[in-house]
Amino acid sequence: MSIVMDDIEKKNLLYDFYGELLTDHQRLIYEDAVYNDCSLSELAEEYNISRQGVHDLLKRCDKILGDYENKLRLVERFNTLKQKAMKIEELSSDDTVRKLAREIMEEL
Amino acid sequence: MSIVMDDIEKKNLLYDFYGELLTDHQRLIYEDAVYNDCSLSELAEEYNISRQGVHDLLKRCDKILGDYENKLRLVERFNTLKQKAMKIEELSSDDTVRKLAREIMEEL
Repeated sequence: MSIVMDDIEKKNLLYDFYGELLTDHQRLIYEDAVYNDCSLSELAEEYNISRQGVHDLLKRCDKILGDYENKLRLVERFNTLKQKAMKIEELSSDDTVRKLAREIMEEL
Repeated sequence: MSIVMDDIEKKNLLYDFYGELLTDHQRLIYEDAVYNDCSLSELAEEYNISRQGVHDLLKRCDKILGDYENKLRLVERFNTLKQKAMKIEELSSDDTVRKLAREIMEEL
């Protein structure tokens, strides 16, 4: 179960970072699949393409997003930074510092 | 003069983030131009292409890097985070917190 969650979380992160690099058409369908949890059949009907067509498009999107991450490693880099910001928020007793740390975490 | 510096700094940042998305050939020449400050003539001789060819290649690289930034806004996002980390480093008196803030700044 946690593997599935991690997978969805990872998809969300990849999409947050690189989604803008997909076409509008890809984005529409990908968002419906990942964020709105639509089934292949629902997507096929909604966008008037075959279930296989939807399946291929989603696979292609995953590949594109994964390829960008392999090259740029942004999700990885941002995660490391987030951990450090969380630690600052945990350790510091200064309100301004903790607020800044939370702002960093929220922007990551 | 500061405009020139800012321009070079911006090129460096764009290249840091998106350089991996250029081809190996583009990267080689772009690095020689931006980091090693080679002239068009030097690059033309080194890579056995015309000066115009070098000029066009560099322009194309700038365009590619700029287009990625227009879509992903990473340089902009990282800059905002860096400012906040600098402020934490400035404000905090806790050594561990300041070290973490410096680590964030270095990774950005």
